[in-house]
Amino acid sequence: MTAPMINARDIDFLLYELFDSESLCNRQRYQDHDRTTFNEVINTAKQIADKHFLPIRNKLDNQQPTFDGKKVHLIKELKPALDALQESGIPSATADYEFNGMQLPPIIANVAGAYLTIAGGTALGYSMLTTANANLLQAHGSKELIEKWVKPLREGRYAGTMAMTEPGAGSGLADLTTTAIKSEDDSYKITGNKIFISGGDHDLNENIVHLVLARIKGAPKGTKGISLFVVPKFLVSDDGSIGKQNDVALAGLFHKMGGRAQTSTALSFGEKGGAVGYLVGEENKGLQYMFHMMNEARVMVGSGAAAIAVGGFQYSLDYANNRPQGRLPSCKDPHSPMVNIIEHADIKRMLLAQKAYAEGALALVLLGSQLSDDEKTAETDEAKAHAHTLLDFLTPIIKTWPSEYGPKANDFAIQVLGGHGYINEHPVEMFYRDNRLNPIHEGTTCIQSLDLLARKVPMNNMLGYKAILAEFTKTIAAGNAEPSLAAYANQLAEALTTLNKTTDFLLKAMGTENIDLVLANSVQYLSMFGHIVISWIWLKQAVIASAALKEELHINEQQFYRGKLQAMQYFYRYELPQINHWSLLLTTLDDTTYQMNTDWF
Amino acid sequence: MTAPMINARDIDFLLYELFDSESLCNRQRYQDHDRTTFNEVINTAKQIADKHFLPIRNKLDNQQPTFDGKKVHLIKELKPALDALQESGIPSATADYEFNGMQLPPIIANVAGAYLTIAGGTALGYSMLTTANANLLQAHGSKELIEKWVKPLREGRYAGTMAMTEPGAGSGLADLTTTAIKSEDDSYKITGNKIFISGGDHDLNENIVHLVLARIKGAPKGTKGISLFVVPKFLVSDDGSIGKQNDVALAGLFHKMGGRAQTSTALSFGEKGGAVGYLVGEENKGLQYMFHMMNEARVMVGSGAAAIAVGGFQYSLDYANNRPQGRLPSCKDPHSPMVNIIEHADIKRMLLAQKAYAEGALALVLLGSQLSDDEKTAETDEAKAHAHTLLDFLTPIIKTWPSEYGPKANDFAIQVLGGHGYINEHPVEMFYRDNRLNPIHEGTTCIQSLDLLARKVPMNNMLGYKAILAEFTKTIAAGNAEPSLAAYANQLAEALTTLNKTTDFLLKAMGTENIDLVLANSVQYLSMFGHIVISWIWLKQAVIASAALKEELHINEQQFYRGKLQAMQYFYRYELPQINHWSLLLTTLDDTTYQMNTDWF
Repeated sequence: MTAPMINARDIDFLLYELFDSESLCNRQRYQDHDRTTFNEVINTAKQIADKHFLPIRNKLDNQQPTFDGKKVHLIKELKPALDALQESGIPSATADYEFNGMQLPPIIANVAGAYLTIAGGTALGYSMLTTANANLLQAHGSKELIEKWVKPLREGRYAGTMAMTEPGAGSGLADLTTTAIKSEDDSYKITGNKIFISGGDHDLNENIVHLVLARIKGAPKGTKGISLFVVPKFLVSDDGSIGKQNDVALAGLFHKMGGRAQTSTALSFGEKGGAVGYLVGEENKGLQYMFHMMNEARVMVGSGAAAIAVGGFQYSLDYANNRPQGRLPSCKDPHSPMVNIIEHADIKRMLLAQKAYAEGALALVLLGSQLSDDEKTAETDEAKAHAHTLLDFLTPIIKTWPSEYGPKANDFAIQVLGGHGYINEHPVEMFYRDNRLNPIHEGTTCIQSLDLLARKVPMNNMLGYKAILAEFTKTIAAGNAEPSLAAYANQLAEALTTLNKTTDFLLKAMGTENIDLVLANSVQYLSMFGHIVISWIWLKQAVIASAALKEELHINEQQFYRGKLQAMQYFYRYELPQINHWSLLLTTLDDTTYQMNTDWF
Repeated sequence: MTAPMINARDIDFLLYELFDSESLCNRQRYQDHDRTTFNEVINTAKQIADKHFLPIRNKLDNQQPTFDGKKVHLIKELKPALDALQESGIPSATADYEFNGMQLPPIIANVAGAYLTIAGGTALGYSMLTTANANLLQAHGSKELIEKWVKPLREGRYAGTMAMTEPGAGSGLADLTTTAIKSEDDSYKITGNKIFISGGDHDLNENIVHLVLARIKGAPKGTKGISLFVVPKFLVSDDGSIGKQNDVALAGLFHKMGGRAQTSTALSFGEKGGAVGYLVGEENKGLQYMFHMMNEARVMVGSGAAAIAVGGFQYSLDYANNRPQGRLPSCKDPHSPMVNIIEHADIKRMLLAQKAYAEGALALVLLGSQLSDDEKTAETDEAKAHAHTLLDFLTPIIKTWPSEYGPKANDFAIQVLGGHGYINEHPVEMFYRDNRLNPIHEGTTCIQSLDLLARKVPMNNMLGYKAILAEFTKTIAAGNAEPSLAAYANQLAEALTTLNKTTDFLLKAMGTENIDLVLANSVQYLSMFGHIVISWIWLKQAVIASAALKEELHINEQQFYRGKLQAMQYFYRYELPQINHWSLLLTTLDDTTYQMNTDWF
């Protein structure tokens, strides 16, 4: 296993050349940090990934969790690995000092997480979900709830889950039916079935804290009648000692195509009269709380997808550099030595595509992390508000683009390895399976596209749309200032014209045409916007690379920047032009799918 | 499991409306047959699929073959299923009567195989490879070899394999190193290692006949020094009794992402001095023989890919018809009942895409089967030659298009099911995994694209190219004659102009530019040609559907034909326009990948 998980030079480039993360240390929250401490944390993550997760990656995939009717069984190597991770403090890297955190910027934690995700896959989910659960409780729970549940979650003694999906309510949370009835002691009795609950049962921790969406008896229908509850696996006394088992039963495990390190469970609440639950915040505001953290979760999904794309790219690159096979078309001499497959144009195409997808996606999700930081810690209120606007607008794209193009990158990784890519001696087929969940969970691609087109674009008089367009325009100006990039800057400017024209058309149509028809191609709109965002991010990288190449550089540095320019060129030549076709479908209100009668299939 | 494997109405349409298979019965070879016997065989295949393979499909996937160091273990239900299949005679459906065959047309056998593939996946491979092995031996082996090996293969007593790939020679067969040394008794001693040998070891049959490519000592380098040998697992006496084990050892099993019903093995020949092998045909002509059957194998790969695409389409269609979730964007009332997800425009898009891909691919591979029949049994020599020309030209497309778009169809099937598509309670994630092998084996997509652009297009003064263009032109004329189809016929005519312009450009460039650069985007050329072929096939279907709709029809029939028209429309609106982008890359000789320096990654 000689392939690096990530090109460390690219991480330096993204953090310190593209995003200027070092300047974050000027902010009060990060005043104890500097580039050295940032890199130390990243390095620690890399070491834990190397030492504890890479060696068991294959086993976690092959020996998925089993349920014997009583208990869930996981491979025994998992707990020590998760313990090592917990001990490093990385799961709480971004949390406040007072909650045992390191007060690190989210962008640094995201990079640390990328290494861990490539090596540990969904095994990291146990830890990440626990952190997310604690964050939500801390933001919206009462002091009492925080005291009782957040502390052991942060310490890694308890694990956390999110229990939303039900057999009859997946994408449509409005229709969930789990009920809550108030008891005399102000707790609630929870009854209902939840499915696809990641980490829903296991023996890794003393206790599991489920955050459960349920409807209090008599609450309004739809999304406005949903409340959020803490429902622990074991009840806990006031002195913190673990009490008897709550009325939560494991109904079964799902066997997934990928992400096999983490249990996916069906949980049954209240089979024996009602599981004890504690209301988080106010009644009927559960979905609001959940959505607050859902944005975080969506950036997280995009980040995982980007990391797995990077992992596959690096692995297949290493393979292509070391696997001799065949000769170039121009060579007709069978006595000549074979070339390494990286010399073949089509292998280079599949590697360039992966580089363009994976490094573009990684830059995008790091931007997402930076914006989530800026909205809280930027110097001015104006800057905070601006970051909030951009993040809110970009979230469906940050979630979706890496989730759609990450699997495509992994598909190319398999193809680069050929037959060897199809067997589990190499991790690329696992990456491909793991990554396939990402366009589904935390809001499918279609859900994200409706969020973008029907909500985010028109919202606040197009505030978010205008804000991101202004960013594009700045980068176009920078690109135009560099003669070798002017053609690409112009191409992006043309793409913006197309985007504006398409958007104007659709917004007008929303007022005059059948809304179901106008939104029928929303996924194409998201595809178009996503490709433009990634083109913008690549142009930003190219501006930096071009400037760097004007200096005297070590050959390795020259090669690195040249690679950035070539990947940008790949994206502009092979990918960006597709938006014209998507725009055409949108601006003609193509009704092929809308008019398709369900009886005609 | 209420979903049909295939829409039987579509099979009738393809066989008896699109391809006029009934008229085959006028050919002498098929004189004993009529539509009834055709349908009986298809029905038998469907029944075997239903009864013997569907019930064990999931188990075959979950309990992949294991190797305890001595023996391979398969689930016990597999042998009775394969025995039932063998007993039905379907594996030899197309063989001559004198070899226990049914003398059925390949197009009928292909449909029978589609049902079996959807239900049995690669379990069918044991049988299909055995048939292919027997066909090759029968075509190129001596009378002696045929007598000794083909008979028990046809009877299902022996199994057959093809042993080509080596650890150092996958796509580049020219570099294979397995050696053969002639013994005194005219047999050979074979020494070398083979990998990815499907069905390479198991206990399902009395014996296994490996067809092994090897280089006779002193043979020329490259592809011109390769010979083909029969190397049995057990030696066989002249009286047909099984003798001692040959020097062939199972070195290990590969664990594949999909296609898990069939063992994929590493075989070691000659560890104890040399495995006994018998030369097939003449020395150094092995690759030629293998290629003879490779064309058949390539149509077979495309057929498998198309079948799995159809299976996923039908399954997800059934799911979408029965799964309530959410409401249309125009409905804001949470009290209104949920709709079945098939009502959502984006679900319809993903189903239409699957229909366009899957039924388009199925029509294409049936055309391949029909051409392989026509080249042998058509009425005139001219018709035979014409069929040969078309099949030879189309083979890279028949292999590749279904292999590339079948997995895309399965990807949509997963997305239609959402989280449920990601777990193994439903077969769509298995289809997705199974289908992913198809762009790799029997010549990768890149290999096929080089075959098309560098060989098939210029060959024989562009005979094949001109022949298929003439077919397109006929269908355009038929489309133009129907006013409701004229726009699509024009769109296809424009696509042909683009294709001709692109092809002319490339052929000229081959004479003047660096050949490695000219071929750098060969995959884009194959993509373009493939999309045009599928557009042509859809227009052919639309012409028939439009004519049918002029008659008075039962409502079900009307709906069926409307669906055909809408799927055609989908392909023309959403897919065909992509060729313009591919053409641009080709006609500008885009050098992005070619110029990418391997050190820049």
